[in-house]
Amino acid sequence: MSKSSQNDTPPDSVEPANEENIHRRSWLKPSLDWLLIFVPIAIAMRFIPGLYNPTWLFIVSCIAIIPLAGWMGKATEHLAERLGQGIGGLLNATFGNAAELIIALFALSKGLEGVVKASITGSIIGNLLLVLGLSLLAGGAKFKEQIFNRTAASMSATALTLAAIALLIPSVFHQVAAQVPVAEGGWTPAKEQSLSLAIAVVLIVTYGFTLLFSLVTHKKLFLGEAIQGAAQKVGHELEESEDDDEKHKMVWSRGKSVLVLLVATGFVALISEFLVGAIEEARGSLGLTEVFVGVIVVAIIGNAAEHSSAILMAMRNKMDLSLSIALGSSLQIALFVAPVLLFASYLFGKPMNLEFTIPEVIAVIAAVLIAQQISSDGESNWVEGVQLLSVYAVLAILFFFLPDVHTTATAPQVINSVAPAVSHP
Amino acid sequence: MSKSSQNDTPPDSVEPANEENIHRRSWLKPSLDWLLIFVPIAIAMRFIPGLYNPTWLFIVSCIAIIPLAGWMGKATEHLAERLGQGIGGLLNATFGNAAELIIALFALSKGLEGVVKASITGSIIGNLLLVLGLSLLAGGAKFKEQIFNRTAASMSATALTLAAIALLIPSVFHQVAAQVPVAEGGWTPAKEQSLSLAIAVVLIVTYGFTLLFSLVTHKKLFLGEAIQGAAQKVGHELEESEDDDEKHKMVWSRGKSVLVLLVATGFVALISEFLVGAIEEARGSLGLTEVFVGVIVVAIIGNAAEHSSAILMAMRNKMDLSLSIALGSSLQIALFVAPVLLFASYLFGKPMNLEFTIPEVIAVIAAVLIAQQISSDGESNWVEGVQLLSVYAVLAILFFFLPDVHTTATAPQVINSVAPAVSHP
Amino acid sequence: MSKSSQNDTPPDSVEPANEENIHRRSWLKPSLDWLLIFVPIAIAMRFIPGLYNPTWLFIVSCIAIIPLAGWMGKATEHLAERLGQGIGGLLNATFGNAAELIIALFALSKGLEGVVKASITGSIIGNLLLVLGLSLLAGGAKFKEQIFNRTAASMSATALTLAAIALLIPSVFHQVAAQVPVAEGGWTPAKEQSLSLAIAVVLIVTYGFTLLFSLVTHKKLFLGEAIQGAAQKVGHELEESEDDDEKHKMVWSRGKSVLVLLVATGFVALISEFLVGAIEEARGSLGLTEVFVGVIVVAIIGNAAEHSSAILMAMRNKMDLSLSIALGSSLQIALFVAPVLLFASYLFGKPMNLEFTIPEVIAVIAAVLIAQQISSDGESNWVEGVQLLSVYAVLAILFFFLPDVHTTATAPQVINSVAPAVSHP
Repeated sequence: MSKSSQNDTPPDSVEPANEENIHRRSWLKPSLDWLLIFVPIAIAMRFIPGLYNPTWLFIVSCIAIIPLAGWMGKATEHLAERLGQGIGGLLNATFGNAAELIIALFALSKGLEGVVKASITGSIIGNLLLVLGLSLLAGGAKFKEQIFNRTAASMSATALTLAAIALLIPSVFHQVAAQVPVAEGGWTPAKEQSLSLAIAVVLIVTYGFTLLFSLVTHKKLFLGEAIQGAAQKVGHELEESEDDDEKHKMVWSRGKSVLVLLVATGFVALISEFLVGAIEEARGSLGLTEVFVGVIVVAIIGNAAEHSSAILMAMRNKMDLSLSIALGSSLQIALFVAPVLLFASYLFGKPMNLEFTIPEVIAVIAAVLIAQQISSDGESNWVEGVQLLSVYAVLAILFFFLPDVHTTATAPQVINSVAPAVSHP
Repeated sequence: MSKSSQNDTPPDSVEPANEENIHRRSWLKPSLDWLLIFVPIAIAMRFIPGLYNPTWLFIVSCIAIIPLAGWMGKATEHLAERLGQGIGGLLNATFGNAAELIIALFALSKGLEGVVKASITGSIIGNLLLVLGLSLLAGGAKFKEQIFNRTAASMSATALTLAAIALLIPSVFHQVAAQVPVAEGGWTPAKEQSLSLAIAVVLIVTYGFTLLFSLVTHKKLFLGEAIQGAAQKVGHELEESEDDDEKHKMVWSRGKSVLVLLVATGFVALISEFLVGAIEEARGSLGLTEVFVGVIVVAIIGNAAEHSSAILMAMRNKMDLSLSIALGSSLQIALFVAPVLLFASYLFGKPMNLEFTIPEVIAVIAAVLIAQQISSDGESNWVEGVQLLSVYAVLAILFFFLPDVHTTATAPQVINSVAPAVSHP
Repeated sequence: MSKSSQNDTPPDSVEPANEENIHRRSWLKPSLDWLLIFVPIAIAMRFIPGLYNPTWLFIVSCIAIIPLAGWMGKATEHLAERLGQGIGGLLNATFGNAAELIIALFALSKGLEGVVKASITGSIIGNLLLVLGLSLLAGGAKFKEQIFNRTAASMSATALTLAAIALLIPSVFHQVAAQVPVAEGGWTPAKEQSLSLAIAVVLIVTYGFTLLFSLVTHKKLFLGEAIQGAAQKVGHELEESEDDDEKHKMVWSRGKSVLVLLVATGFVALISEFLVGAIEEARGSLGLTEVFVGVIVVAIIGNAAEHSSAILMAMRNKMDLSLSIALGSSLQIALFVAPVLLFASYLFGKPMNLEFTIPEVIAVIAAVLIAQQISSDGESNWVEGVQLLSVYAVLAILFFFLPDVHTTATAPQVINSVAPAVSHP
């Protein structure tokens, strides 16, 4: 079997309408929407005194957020469709990870800085390893070899390398500057904060240029497939064209999009508040560390919608869209959400810095490195999916065993206590 | 001179027969087999009291193992040829590094965990830097530019990146978790062991999928050259076809293969026992550290057979085979031999973990990174060989100067004693 | 717009003459030569007692060196042109960074080892990130997509990876060996020195092979464009050919080249002496650390000439030349200048080792990694320039906030004093 071309499958690049289309014809089939039932359950558990149990509230809230995040994403995409390529693209690029942003803002306001940073780490590695890994595996199970635009993928991978370097720097600064007495210019929290702020500005400016590149100067690289599909349609496929008309009708009106967006966002905010409020007690009773909850649990929940879309696209052999979801989402978290959270933290009066723990930094670097290797050659197969998933498994194992490290204000290393050894974890 | 095509040289993809062919016509020429003379010498030195000298026994055993490992490899390949592609490939993939495995098992049973880990490190970097470097240099000296299948090489390079990440994690865990008191979830040997066991399972499962990929679903990528050669033969080269018949006759019978394999394995086991038994005394008298002996000496000996085959293939412009030996052997050590040694260590009642020292981890990451860069473009030249050898030289210098570090059970850092400074090494 | 071919622009591969050509027609236009006015100013400030002020002398000397370095480079290239490809290439390859070398030698003789190492770091990351970043941005602003020879760029990028690994090793050795008591083979300055010397030998030998590759065995890869241009000219462009004659006349005579080279070198040496003599007092009064002055200030000054040439070439869509200047200059610093400085340090009786600080090593690794990603696909656009500049900005921020760390002789970590915390930097 030769290289599978993307023209073999019918072109259906207008995603949202298409998804609804599928949804309408298959409301009995399994869907994330069934999980909406957990929204009222979470509300009931939170407000009816007898039902309150932080662990269960945490679990139910986690599940309830998944379909809500999906609806937020869907409404954003429909609205973007109505607003046209330019502003629509910008909307998608800035609100695509709104659910994660809302959860993180609530966590920040409660002072859970560790969870926030862990969930940034988790979103980056989750998209690069878990989402991309499952996509390549699912796509590769159907198609022997899949191809995609190397230039667009490389641009994203390089931007992620830049982000990984940027997130490494505050830790390096802490480790090195803490070796010097404060009087001689050594580490202080204020310096760490200034350094982080400067790096956040560089990241968000770079993100602005990345949008300029992908939405304005080189948009064809990223829209290539849609345009190609459209040209083909006009030429010689009439019923496809009709299908396209039908699709266009399927795009929600501006009013409906805004309404759905507002309602879904409201519910995400409400449930996020439950989730974050219960997080400390829940992880205590589940025996999970802060870093594991942030890196693995919160990150999987916040990105569940991306997971299903990216995998679906890969199974339809639309690798450009699949990669653009997985890589683009990581990019957005690293270059946009992380700096925005830092800026927002000043509003809460609890300034956050960008100093991540060493394991978090290593996880991000490892994920970026292997994703870059896999995406740089413009072709994929199932074993590359397995390799990404293996790296995810290895990192998840690390975060499962890792205790929470609370960095002290003056020195990077805490002296070991001589507590008696605990046996098996 | 344009790109040299692989069709310029006569196709002779059935390696073992071909090698024997060469061997028969050239028994007077230099051959590793002459080194078999050291087998009886080693045995004599070990059992005749007056001749016993641990340093010389170590050296003689080192040399004696080289041709024995070659015969084990040869017998495995002949047997694989007889058993057909599927099972044969599996046999090659699992017993290809049997000599290293046997040496390591003896070292483990003696409690030489440091030597075992160092020899794993050394086999990985030795194959990626020394074997591949010499191959590209020798091939590049004859051919201006050599080409190979980028997809197959990339798959191996990515698997090695995954392995490098996996081998980094236990060290990171130790460094970070040791900063937390044990009562709050800090580092314990038991946790390190559980973490290592979980990572070993991920590695060996990934290795299974890698075999599935290269032997079943995408075997054409790896057999490309053989098939291409065969097609060409059938078409228009009759005497080649006869040569092929002759070659087929040259493949050993199943009985001969098994017999040679058993005898060679028996001798390897015997000599390994001598080698490992003498290692501690020998390195003391030679002034070498445990880590240098493991990383450089044992690794070169265990991989001598791979060295000669990979270089020979490169000089015949069969770069796909050459790379597949060098990259494949590293891959097998990292994803198969390392986990198997960990599992086997439980049988000896001395469980080994996967925590490597920082220099070992850095050496593996450096080797994988540069090998990936060189193999990702599908073409090679002599200066790339020089670059790989330079990295090997730099790492060998590090391990030559590096003292043995004995990690303590509770903390990653040992406090410096105030011993008087020793002058030049 | 499709891929812009390098044949679209008129071929003018003989650079020096061409530059002078432009210069002559545009002596009123902004030029680095106007900065030559700072040479007499610096001399006056140094020798007229009333004008002496170390801070201003430092600043004026910095500016004065920029055009002098440009004239040294220009004279070297003209001389190289007259001496023919072989020896000329060698001359360019060894004296291309003579200005940096002279500044570093003066700094070494004053015992400013920290500044020397920082300026090596700064030259490597400055060329890879700042020079290459500005070139891709300036070129990409004019051309949608620019292409270059992937093989030549990869060779340089891989050599830089090797250099990054080599510069990492002495730090790793210090960190690890310092954990072992000296009596058991632990860290001593003498061992660090021997290790550094051995690595320097490997680097300079590798540099020799790299020259052999690019000037002898594979010179076509690097001269590809010039030859291609020449062939085209002969074929069908007469007035281009005349232009070429004119250009040839423009190449300076051997005598003029040598004279200009000697005079410029003399002034560079003189001004370097001023600069280095004033460095300590100046950075005190400017509130800059030693590492910031070395990595950012001295490096930008020493490489100003490369900056303007590389950007000019990129704007003329001669990406092969632009990359060869930026990557080649980094390569030369890492593989040639660094070892030469180490060897030269013995002449001053103050042997320098190759142990860089952790932030320096990380900066080099980060720069090499991202430059390798960007140069490995053989095409570039403006956003890749932005990405390189962003990494440079992030690293500059780090070095701005970083205090000077003075490594002690016996242990890598200094215990924090309990000095009162200083507020915002």
